[in-house]
Amino acid sequence: MNRRKYVLGLDFGTESGRAVLVDVAHGRELATAVYPYSHGVIDEVLPVAGKPVRLEPDWALQDPADYIRTFQRAVPAALRQSGVDPADVIGVGIDFTACTMLPVLADGTPLCELPEYRRNPHAWVKLWKHHAAQPEADRMNAVARALGERWLDRYGGQISSEWFVAKALQILVEAPEIYQAASRFVEAADWAVWQLTGQETRNACTAGYSVMGSNTFGYPSSAFYAEINPRLEELLTTKVLSTIMPIGARAGELTVQAARWTGLKPGTPVAVATIDSYACVPAATVTGPGRMVAIMGTSNTLIVLGSDEKPVPGIAGFAEDSIVPGLFAYAAGQSAVGDIFAWFVDQAVPATYHAAARKRKVSVHQLLEAEAAQQRPGESGLLALDWWNGNRSVLVDADLSGLLVGATLATRPAEIYRALIEGTAYGMRAIMEAFEQHGVAANEIVACGGLPEKNKLLMQIYADATGRELKVTATTQASALGAAMLGAVAAGQSAGGYDTLIDAAEKMAHLKKQSYKPDPRAHSVYDQLYSDYLMLHDYFGRGGNDVMKRLKRLRATTRQA
Amino acid sequence: MNRRKYVLGLDFGTESGRAVLVDVAHGRELATAVYPYSHGVIDEVLPVAGKPVRLEPDWALQDPADYIRTFQRAVPAALRQSGVDPADVIGVGIDFTACTMLPVLADGTPLCELPEYRRNPHAWVKLWKHHAAQPEADRMNAVARALGERWLDRYGGQISSEWFVAKALQILVEAPEIYQAASRFVEAADWAVWQLTGQETRNACTAGYSVMGSNTFGYPSSAFYAEINPRLEELLTTKVLSTIMPIGARAGELTVQAARWTGLKPGTPVAVATIDSYACVPAATVTGPGRMVAIMGTSNTLIVLGSDEKPVPGIAGFAEDSIVPGLFAYAAGQSAVGDIFAWFVDQAVPATYHAAARKRKVSVHQLLEAEAAQQRPGESGLLALDWWNGNRSVLVDADLSGLLVGATLATRPAEIYRALIEGTAYGMRAIMEAFEQHGVAANEIVACGGLPEKNKLLMQIYADATGRELKVTATTQASALGAAMLGAVAAGQSAGGYDTLIDAAEKMAHLKKQSYKPDPRAHSVYDQLYSDYLMLHDYFGRGGNDVMKRLKRLRATTRQA
Repeated sequence: MNRRKYVLGLDFGTESGRAVLVDVAHGRELATAVYPYSHGVIDEVLPVAGKPVRLEPDWALQDPADYIRTFQRAVPAALRQSGVDPADVIGVGIDFTACTMLPVLADGTPLCELPEYRRNPHAWVKLWKHHAAQPEADRMNAVARALGERWLDRYGGQISSEWFVAKALQILVEAPEIYQAASRFVEAADWAVWQLTGQETRNACTAGYSVMGSNTFGYPSSAFYAEINPRLEELLTTKVLSTIMPIGARAGELTVQAARWTGLKPGTPVAVATIDSYACVPAATVTGPGRMVAIMGTSNTLIVLGSDEKPVPGIAGFAEDSIVPGLFAYAAGQSAVGDIFAWFVDQAVPATYHAAARKRKVSVHQLLEAEAAQQRPGESGLLALDWWNGNRSVLVDADLSGLLVGATLATRPAEIYRALIEGTAYGMRAIMEAFEQHGVAANEIVACGGLPEKNKLLMQIYADATGRELKVTATTQASALGAAMLGAVAAGQSAGGYDTLIDAAEKMAHLKKQSYKPDPRAHSVYDQLYSDYLMLHDYFGRGGNDVMKRLKRLRATTRQA
Repeated sequence: MNRRKYVLGLDFGTESGRAVLVDVAHGRELATAVYPYSHGVIDEVLPVAGKPVRLEPDWALQDPADYIRTFQRAVPAALRQSGVDPADVIGVGIDFTACTMLPVLADGTPLCELPEYRRNPHAWVKLWKHHAAQPEADRMNAVARALGERWLDRYGGQISSEWFVAKALQILVEAPEIYQAASRFVEAADWAVWQLTGQETRNACTAGYSVMGSNTFGYPSSAFYAEINPRLEELLTTKVLSTIMPIGARAGELTVQAARWTGLKPGTPVAVATIDSYACVPAATVTGPGRMVAIMGTSNTLIVLGSDEKPVPGIAGFAEDSIVPGLFAYAAGQSAVGDIFAWFVDQAVPATYHAAARKRKVSVHQLLEAEAAQQRPGESGLLALDWWNGNRSVLVDADLSGLLVGATLATRPAEIYRALIEGTAYGMRAIMEAFEQHGVAANEIVACGGLPEKNKLLMQIYADATGRELKVTATTQASALGAAMLGAVAAGQSAGGYDTLIDAAEKMAHLKKQSYKPDPRAHSVYDQLYSDYLMLHDYFGRGGNDVMKRLKRLRATTRQA
């Protein structure tokens, strides 16, 4: 009888890195260790000695040394905790936030680690939520639209300031010395794999965004690059592109140095990296079309697999082979979900609720959830548009804002809380209908992330409002499990792993027994409310009344004055 | 040299009665005494012995004995406080909430004081905010519209459930035994005068509502009464109507019994009663067209005088001679103002604000006001429709509700607070524009009531948003002063008073030196915001999108289910 085999998933988040050790046979989690980044999100001052280097608004950086420290601290801690023999760890997989990117030398050394560039913010890692490249994104969208570039359709009609190309262009424009000094511009996901294996690879998942385009939709024209910045094309071809490897492939093996960092054996297979939300898909048992994966937390990411490549207006970013070979991944987002509820609890819940929560020894969220659960759909008389952080998919408009209608002197906080949950449920339904209208239907939702664990009322409302059954992943660490599954595929069946991600998902991914089924009566009330949501959605979001944009503009000019 | 003369104003409010003694020469307030009604607003259980008599929702009653106790307690207290010789009190005036009405015997005895009717809620005083006659009001509006009754125009196109006729019809339908037993149905204002003078009178102010119509607009047709309830016409003609006396006239003199209650001299002249908000108009120095009086508090009442009688759509209730002889009074209302801010503080201000307010020893309102005063117009990016309690004037629709647009994750409580204030300012401007479009313009606003004293920021915002100068009455008890002025006119010049209300206003009514002038820059920003307010106002209020009504209906059916 063979000894049990294990794989390690490494999940690089916004505030910390996490190592999760699972068994290959069942995907059972044996140990988890978290390393909170010592510099966290760098958004005010660079962590350098001497005179402070302050960052402009909308900047968000990370320190690549925090990723190395995750290897050095989290992996050995997880190994120790589990008692597993490192010889039985047959593969490592990595998932990362995206687009998180950095400029490096040819050997992978980050420019920010060189004394001459350490005080230049552009030498550091630009985190996914670095939004200072908005002018660059705006210009690229405008030029692409003016030139009628077809590839733009692939991204729902516009690219975001969070994307690799926008961030790279910002460096090119604002820090030509960094552009000069950098041999490569690389996704942090691929950089992490590079540090473990000593070899540079590019994963198909994030590369799908970097190249801007596809064989179906074409690529940016020379006229486009000429208009934007002639050196951008050069940057992308000479300093970014290289062989792109499919998700599920083996990037290389652990170097002696990386083995020393981690306590794993040199030569352990390392998988090609992936995006955190994409890693959740196989971990949610989804390896084919028809089921939507909802990664629910501060914001929601919604992913559906499709067999064809086609444009879905307002839905950004799909790439072939980025999750399951041969399938396209359609990804949409709700830019604020848990963030709205957190805003509400911080900014709009009266003192009496805080006191009552303390007395009952529950959180304010739990108290509100309990009270909101007593209400029937429609009972509050409230309806909300869930655009507290703009609209990321379908309308793709950051200048839209939140709306609440139906307030009376009798309106109570828990009613507003429930209306906000319902608003985000309608927002999800609007995205699902956009998918459906363009041939990427999903009849079922598999949820993972923080919210499904925390708020059962929310899950039931989502089922009732969308009319779809909501299942929940058995793991609470879906992205790390997904990364570990990629490690098992990188190892292959001969080494005790799996040859395909589909095989791995069949054995290692599980759903909870309990699911949330739509209640027909509640669904019928929500159908009525949703038709009003849609009417307001189109009135405020599609030009019927541009009051939200006017308010944002007035707000901006007033603050500048 | 003559001895100084004094007049007494008696102001009957929702929770208490108030006696204010002022000097005739300057309107200076010498003493104020308040009697909090022992039974306050009766809206749950009748204050009777034995098995509890519970009231239906929307009921609101008062006990007429509380009015008598106001005579017995407040008047002597005010006299004592002032040290004034009762012989020098030359007149008494009364103002009252309206429509507040009760059924009585021919001698004025309230039916609720007879043992056989004491347990019947319909025998008690129906307070202005008794809203249980809504079905009756709905039916009268529907029938009047169907029959094309012209008098309806006089009331802005519909009558309210608060009105005398609606309340009388409710008694007729639900309590025929009370209808039978009552010789008279009388406004509490007139009943109070009756108790002081021993003579029944009807004041022109409230009578304007009871008769439903005018010589210009005509009166309800027999077909209307036949359709509604044939006995309603009989009730109005035999149990309500009598000689209507103009405001400023003398109703009679104090009886020996009333002199005993109050400590005043028998024979002291008593003025015809008036509505509390109407009493404020001369007390605000307004005795002619062109200036609007704003009585600002939990709700706003806005009154403009005009020289002609003409319909203003959505503006209810104007009557000739009801304030100044020969002029028509146009009265509009904002159904919630201070109530919205109170709702916000109770239901939507987080614990941190309460703690900070305690620390600085200010109220939460004051803290919010101080923070909101730091913001410039337009800076919050928020816009509110001020319909938390429906819309009383212009749209006249109780089923409209509150709306907030522009919320983001960065929105702070004091920004919402300011947006709510701004929303009520736009609401006032919409009413002023409706007045203006129909020939009843006002270039200036004179404010009285609780809010002008409490919230200077609100006053400045109202000036900036309406583009009108806001002046403020010197007195904080405008309705009581107005009532006292009517007492001085009832006494007449020969007795040391005045012959006309205009003379009385010239001497007794004063404004504060400080006024609020519109800031041109703020006004120009508010012009932009107001045009968006109007767009939303019409979209949600005039049928562009009936979502508010659908939400209310859904709320009602869900609660019944």
